Amino acid sequence: MLAWAYLSRVIEGPSRALQSLLDAGWTARDIAAGVRTRDPAVGGLIKETAARHRQCHPEADLEAAAAVGARLIHPGHPDWPAAELDSAFGFAARQAGGRADAVAPHALWVRGGSPAGLCAQAVALVGTRAISRYGAEVTGSLARGMAGHRWTVVSGGALGVDAVAHNAALDAGGSTVVVAACGIDVDYPRRHARLFDRVAENGAVVTEYPPGATPHRHRFLTRNRLVAALSLGTVVTEAAWRSGALNTLSWAEHLGRVCMAVPGPVTTAGSVGCHERIRTRAAELVTSADDVRALVGPAGTPDSAGQYELDFGPDPVQRLDRNQLRVFDALEPGTGRRAGEIAATAGLPLPLTVHLLVDLMRAGLVRLEGELWHRGQLP
Amino acid sequence: MLAWAYLSRVIEGPSRALQSLLDAGWTARDIAAGVRTRDPAVGGLIKETAARHRQCHPEADLEAAAAVGARLIHPGHPDWPAAELDSAFGFAARQAGGRADAVAPHALWVRGGSPAGLCAQAVALVGTRAISRYGAEVTGSLARGMAGHRWTVVSGGALGVDAVAHNAALDAGGSTVVVAACGIDVDYPRRHARLFDRVAENGAVVTEYPPGATPHRHRFLTRNRLVAALSLGTVVTEAAWRSGALNTLSWAEHLGRVCMAVPGPVTTAGSVGCHERIRTRAAELVTSADDVRALVGPAGTPDSAGQYELDFGPDPVQRLDRNQLRVFDALEPGTGRRAGEIAATAGLPLPLTVHLLVDLMRAGLVRLEGELWHRGQLP
Repeated sequence: MLAWAYLSRVIEGPSRALQSLLDAGWTARDIAAGVRTRDPAVGGLIKETAARHRQCHPEADLEAAAAVGARLIHPGHPDWPAAELDSAFGFAARQAGGRADAVAPHALWVRGGSPAGLCAQAVALVGTRAISRYGAEVTGSLARGMAGHRWTVVSGGALGVDAVAHNAALDAGGSTVVVAACGIDVDYPRRHARLFDRVAENGAVVTEYPPGATPHRHRFLTRNRLVAALSLGTVVTEAAWRSGALNTLSWAEHLGRVCMAVPGPVTTAGSVGCHERIRTRAAELVTSADDVRALVGPAGTPDSAGQYELDFGPDPVQRLDRNQLRVFDALEPGTGRRAGEIAATAGLPLPLTVHLLVDLMRAGLVRLEGELWHRGQLP
Repeated sequence: MLAWAYLSRVIEGPSRALQSLLDAGWTARDIAAGVRTRDPAVGGLIKETAARHRQCHPEADLEAAAAVGARLIHPGHPDWPAAELDSAFGFAARQAGGRADAVAPHALWVRGGSPAGLCAQAVALVGTRAISRYGAEVTGSLARGMAGHRWTVVSGGALGVDAVAHNAALDAGGSTVVVAACGIDVDYPRRHARLFDRVAENGAVVTEYPPGATPHRHRFLTRNRLVAALSLGTVVTEAAWRSGALNTLSWAEHLGRVCMAVPGPVTTAGSVGCHERIRTRAAELVTSADDVRALVGPAGTPDSAGQYELDFGPDPVQRLDRNQLRVFDALEPGTGRRAGEIAATAGLPLPLTVHLLVDLMRAGLVRLEGELWHRGQLP
């Protein structure tokens, strides 16, 4: 554990050099010893750790983590989200021209539950810090809808969309995961300290950075790959032209995850980023948690399509085709007409008219009384 | 002309039987005579006109039209929009499983300018009658944006989106075309009588239905094919799940036109139809007149992409990649640091750090004074 803590401190991920050694069967202890003694066998790590290999106090880091109720997990640990990380970074590795930084974290500091358990059925909801009322409404609705179906909501713990997503999931009695871009003992943003406490109780706060690490812009970008990796899909609920959330969406694509975006009013700049990704087919358009679950859930989940039918479905007259409508419109409410008159008004041949009248009768829209056709069913 | 007026009255289009005779070189006069005398040579038209061939008064129809300042045009007439109709219905005819009713109108009643001239560069803006404040804003903005670039705005003259589109185009000093679903002498909806007068002065009102024809639901659907055919593309600006505007969009697709839809808030049902078409790739997502012109305008018009850059473009720091950001963030405003210190803070090798500092200097983000690197350009 001390070796993992040392590596977490001395190597800022993602590190392909470290990953290669782990893949080759090196233990954390051997790698740590190699870095400390500048053993050429650890290859690229010598260079990567040149500036920091002597300034490490892994015991102090583990103590600092323990002081806030956090622990360190690593590959092989039962809480390690191996399936999620393997599938995501394995996918990236199989892509031609993959990103050099598409590498799994080597260790994770965790406050709260097991990332392995929490992320088995998880979706990321991300977006702008400059959230609008609309963005808050949409994000809250999606988070509640996912949490209500036992999906873990993953996000970055930032102001705006992230905060609404975490809070809404918690309020719905669900689980949520914050992937932080700083040390596990650093509350950033500071005003989210209470939120992070709540998350730790009903989910987890995780980070690949050692205790005390301050949030830096590059760490936000690196962190975004974990938000994408730890969920089956990423939804951008509100994002302007250039938003960090779009970076998370790009990671989702690169890691083989489902990419989704929610459209919004075009009269403000708030959803420009979402629209751009939908327009370029880089993201699926989603409008509800039902839509999201239909895309990321077990294949064939028939959640989505039926929803609209229920709420905004057509009435029987709207289902009619053009010729049926011609005939239907040739009947006036309250007045019976003979088929010949109806045909003349509709401008259709009599046999076709009769055929269509029978269609309408089957649909319950007209009835025949004697020789007269009427609108409506038999009383 | 009397023959065309007779055919317009006696045959309610679209009529494939009539189109076949015209394609075979029959004149309107010969066809009219054939219908009147029940000559078997006119084939299917005998059946189509069974109910009405004796009730026609073409002179009266032409007079009724003239009384409202309208005229009848037909294939071969200089105002006939031959290029538009030929390309649209020609496209449909080449499709396997084409619609039987994808047939050009045989004649058009026109009040105002020349459809041939007006529709040479035209786009259709259509949508719900139950327009929202948002839909009105979007529709008005698109109509003004198209009219301002000398595009004719085509729509159906209905309440809601159609009315906003026509009015906004006129207010912007542009041209607009109403394709009506009733006789040229019938103002429907009645409260649009003044709008139609304005349109006739700065565009045209057109219909394939003879004078006095009342608006019927099947005529709205048939009319929609002309809205789509007389424009290079159709934009649905606001449409709920089941909206006639979506029928126009389907026609646009069937006629080989560009299909577009504007997204909107997902928190109301107003844009559900638009989202559905975008989601299923049946329509391109557009958010502005620039977007529309980029899709329907001459190939390579570079309108769209640049627009956002201008309004919401990234600043130079946002353009940095991850490692550049690590280095940039390792410099604090107002304080100079040596490259070695920067490398240690950034956790990057010194040579790479120097390389990245030079990148940043070229981008005007840092400067070197003596041995110290500073944020910002030389004063």
